[in-house]
Amino acid sequence: MGTLLLVLDLTGTFVFALSGATAGMKRRLDLFGVLVLSFAAGNAGGIVRDLLIDATPPAAISNWYYLAASLLAGLVTFWRPSIIDRLRNPVLLFDAAGLGLFAVAGTQKALVFGLNPAMAAVLGMLTGIGGGMSRDVLLTEVPTVLRSDIYAMAALAGAAVVVIGSALRLPATAVTITGAVLCFGLRLMAIRWGWHLPIASGPEQPAMPASKRKDDGETKH
Amino acid sequence: MGTLLLVLDLTGTFVFALSGATAGMKRRLDLFGVLVLSFAAGNAGGIVRDLLIDATPPAAISNWYYLAASLLAGLVTFWRPSIIDRLRNPVLLFDAAGLGLFAVAGTQKALVFGLNPAMAAVLGMLTGIGGGMSRDVLLTEVPTVLRSDIYAMAALAGAAVVVIGSALRLPATAVTITGAVLCFGLRLMAIRWGWHLPIASGPEQPAMPASKRKDDGETKH
Amino acid sequence: MGTLLLVLDLTGTFVFALSGATAGMKRRLDLFGVLVLSFAAGNAGGIVRDLLIDATPPAAISNWYYLAASLLAGLVTFWRPSIIDRLRNPVLLFDAAGLGLFAVAGTQKALVFGLNPAMAAVLGMLTGIGGGMSRDVLLTEVPTVLRSDIYAMAALAGAAVVVIGSALRLPATAVTITGAVLCFGLRLMAIRWGWHLPIASGPEQPAMPASKRKDDGETKH
Repeated sequence: MGTLLLVLDLTGTFVFALSGATAGMKRRLDLFGVLVLSFAAGNAGGIVRDLLIDATPPAAISNWYYLAASLLAGLVTFWRPSIIDRLRNPVLLFDAAGLGLFAVAGTQKALVFGLNPAMAAVLGMLTGIGGGMSRDVLLTEVPTVLRSDIYAMAALAGAAVVVIGSALRLPATAVTITGAVLCFGLRLMAIRWGWHLPIASGPEQPAMPASKRKDDGETKH
Repeated sequence: MGTLLLVLDLTGTFVFALSGATAGMKRRLDLFGVLVLSFAAGNAGGIVRDLLIDATPPAAISNWYYLAASLLAGLVTFWRPSIIDRLRNPVLLFDAAGLGLFAVAGTQKALVFGLNPAMAAVLGMLTGIGGGMSRDVLLTEVPTVLRSDIYAMAALAGAAVVVIGSALRLPATAVTITGAVLCFGLRLMAIRWGWHLPIASGPEQPAMPASKRKDDGETKH
Repeated sequence: MGTLLLVLDLTGTFVFALSGATAGMKRRLDLFGVLVLSFAAGNAGGIVRDLLIDATPPAAISNWYYLAASLLAGLVTFWRPSIIDRLRNPVLLFDAAGLGLFAVAGTQKALVFGLNPAMAAVLGMLTGIGGGMSRDVLLTEVPTVLRSDIYAMAALAGAAVVVIGSALRLPATAVTITGAVLCFGLRLMAIRWGWHLPIASGPEQPAMPASKRKDDGETKH
């Protein structure tokens, strides 16, 4: 089971790294930049989680497998972008699977390190979305997850299953699989039917501390 | 006194979270994005401080009160922006109070964890300004605190009072209150009279490693 | 030797801080913002490395020398930009020296803390490039190192020398000097002859998860 989990974890890392490499290519980074984006997208979520729960050094730093999986994804994307292009739908599928895996694995690790249930679920979600957020911040874009369809909510739902199952002392394997499948399914349905969260309506926007900050909001960015 | 400090700390978190939520609304994030900005603005300063002084897991992660205060601020802002709008002046007032509280509390925590006085004051200031900085970075804006009026300097003044008082072995409660009030007062006076720090004059700008980097400075951003 | 290393480390911090201050001046930050950029550019790489290898509190936080070196660089740049302007070539030279120093020192520290060789070299490289990356992210620019000439690769080469020398149990001092000189030389040659890494060719760009994200790529940023 340990080996299976590692394989699943590395698969998730690889798929997220593909998304980082692809984003880097679109912004015309050089080879090194593409590899950095691959590593960041594949591992930043887990690294931040490990720093926050004091599981240092983070797994992605103490174990070179994660670096290797990330570099492989970056190199494939860089030299054979046509493969990734052809695989676009599978990649979205893998990404949803990676999100589910990371969310439940992150939640369980946080529980093991003694976090309370609410924060363990938040850290599980963070494990799933942190890589994409760091990818976007490095490319000076507002993280997609902050304004797109149901992505973080799917991760949070999977994490919640783990937390609730753990509180009820249900068998860990069944709970983990249920959580990952729920997240995976929600994410696919969100893509399929275009689900999204509400956005604040326009004219009611408040404008508290904005007197000093120029609003270069949506139109120019 | 422990309860009082916790209440003050959560009040500071709540008010900073309001600023994060408001900024997220202006940039048209969805509900999840607004809540992330709330949490980041309310807690990033303290989280980074705790990571740096090795007080892990950070208080904002091990204790769910901070998450609850941040989410409450985000939800109120999202569904009742008119309330925040009407409260604009009170919010600026609370923000100044939160800055003072965070600056002195952060400094004291850093001293307790054995930092030297100069760095303890820096970390106290960071506690006060870190949330706003992470809010702005997530929205791909240059942090307001790096170019606006007297904000960080007020936090640093409050932190300095704590450090000096601690070195002179003055009573902790009196020193803490003095530092917080000084920061609060300086901040209000800076708003009232438009105090700001000097900015380098234009034509003398050096241009060292800029050959590679396009300067999209003030005009477009 | 300890003193020599500290002097070299502080020199590297000072020179990197100059680059941060210069970038902050160009973007019209106020004095405080320039000083923050100085500290971030001079120390972020080492701080992140120390957090990742659990060497907390990071040296740049527990020891005030680094803050002093950073502030000195920031103040000189702010009040005497003409000095920095006149020194532009020396600064590029110092920057290359700082890169070499940080890369080998970071690698050795990671090895001492028990990291495996591959990740130790990566962390050494990160020590060298992390400051510049955080400087650019704070200014909402895509980190220069992700798309410019040979910079990170020079750091990685120096780090690799340390890792290989350590595995072969060669004398540490000789290995360190060789690594630093190799990095320094590669960097100077890259500047001199305009070496750079390949960039993905244009029309083959894949476009995986971009349906949601506006591409404000090169033209506007």
